[in-house]
Amino acid sequence: MVESTPLADQDYRAGVIDFLAALAYGEISAFERLAEDARKAPSLADKLALAGMAVAEFSHVNALLARITELGGDPVTALTPFEQAIDDFHAHTAPADWFESLVKAYVGDALAADFFREVAHQLDPETRALIDLCLTDTGHADFVVQRVRDAIEHEPRIAGRLALWGRRLMGEALSQAQRVAAERDSLIAVLTANRESGFDLAELAKLFTRLTERHSVRMRTLGLDP
Amino acid sequence: MVESTPLADQDYRAGVIDFLAALAYGEISAFERLAEDARKAPSLADKLALAGMAVAEFSHVNALLARITELGGDPVTALTPFEQAIDDFHAHTAPADWFESLVKAYVGDALAADFFREVAHQLDPETRALIDLCLTDTGHADFVVQRVRDAIEHEPRIAGRLALWGRRLMGEALSQAQRVAAERDSLIAVLTANRESGFDLAELAKLFTRLTERHSVRMRTLGLDP
Repeated sequence: MVESTPLADQDYRAGVIDFLAALAYGEISAFERLAEDARKAPSLADKLALAGMAVAEFSHVNALLARITELGGDPVTALTPFEQAIDDFHAHTAPADWFESLVKAYVGDALAADFFREVAHQLDPETRALIDLCLTDTGHADFVVQRVRDAIEHEPRIAGRLALWGRRLMGEALSQAQRVAAERDSLIAVLTANRESGFDLAELAKLFTRLTERHSVRMRTLGLDP
Repeated sequence: MVESTPLADQDYRAGVIDFLAALAYGEISAFERLAEDARKAPSLADKLALAGMAVAEFSHVNALLARITELGGDPVTALTPFEQAIDDFHAHTAPADWFESLVKAYVGDALAADFFREVAHQLDPETRALIDLCLTDTGHADFVVQRVRDAIEHEPRIAGRLALWGRRLMGEALSQAQRVAAERDSLIAVLTANRESGFDLAELAKLFTRLTERHSVRMRTLGLDP
């Protein structure tokens, strides 16, 4: 019953389609990068772990595209505006080696998940449920944490480089997110539309602070200075 | 109850582990190539179809590795002897463009499935059930057939090149299969072990004839001279 929800409003619906499309293209893109990293894995166990992460990223893409269609959008048209920013993010953060791949897989995936989970809280229950489903933890984080910590123990000097790498990932993600937000008013509008939730631009700033804090916690978990 | 089956025999078990390992490495490798091809897809629909095929290839790898362990094998040790031949197959059949990727995805996957299904018929019921599960049709073949037929209709001259490509895929697959068979006596031994089935080397030759015939049927389905 679309009529009884905020989804009846065309502007709101357009904003939701934008979020679902950004998430879908993000997952397609993460799938491709992780599969490429899996190909370069130094061992079979590493390869399987990274391929498993790639497959998990892709597993909800079809559900997202189906929902975009259901809401009256065309998947290809909907995804197109996000290709450039997400492709640029990956082009600017191409891992130089296996450990940069691992840190990116862990930190990048979790950062995107945090962001979309925060966004989902401001949206209607149906959209929130779908986004939450797409962000179900794939249980591969422990593998990455263990591998990176072992590597640092074995060769402490890589910690400095990987810490810088983590900061670069965060910086590039924020820079691309701001670029998308500046181009797509619909994304801000849909977040601030729900007056009951009291979400406004001040809240948005706090959201980014929370994302940064959680990123720092993850960097420390990896044994890296945030 | 391993004791009551041919799996109680150590040589037979070693042969089964070899087949499961070859299948597992083949699927990991197919996953990686299809994911790479998906990255280069000319459209979002193409990308999704190929990524879906990649994910389907990977979906049974963990079950195969778990079974290898259950039979007393070590997955990494078991897969290693097949890496070279399968990697060489892919290195010698790197698609030059999108349509070569599609034909390879369709023809290569089906050829491997035919081979392992034939092999499974000669093996114990448990192994057969696992292999059959791994070969469940992923339903992406129709997409490939339609795309290739459309392309040929639109540009008939590519049919000659793609027909040659199909023959090269088949030739390279046979050549690598023979190389593996020559190095791994266990594979032939396990196939001919079951005297009830009457499978012997003459049967093996017939098996390869059947594989070639089915390959020809698929080439014609694509609109290509076999």
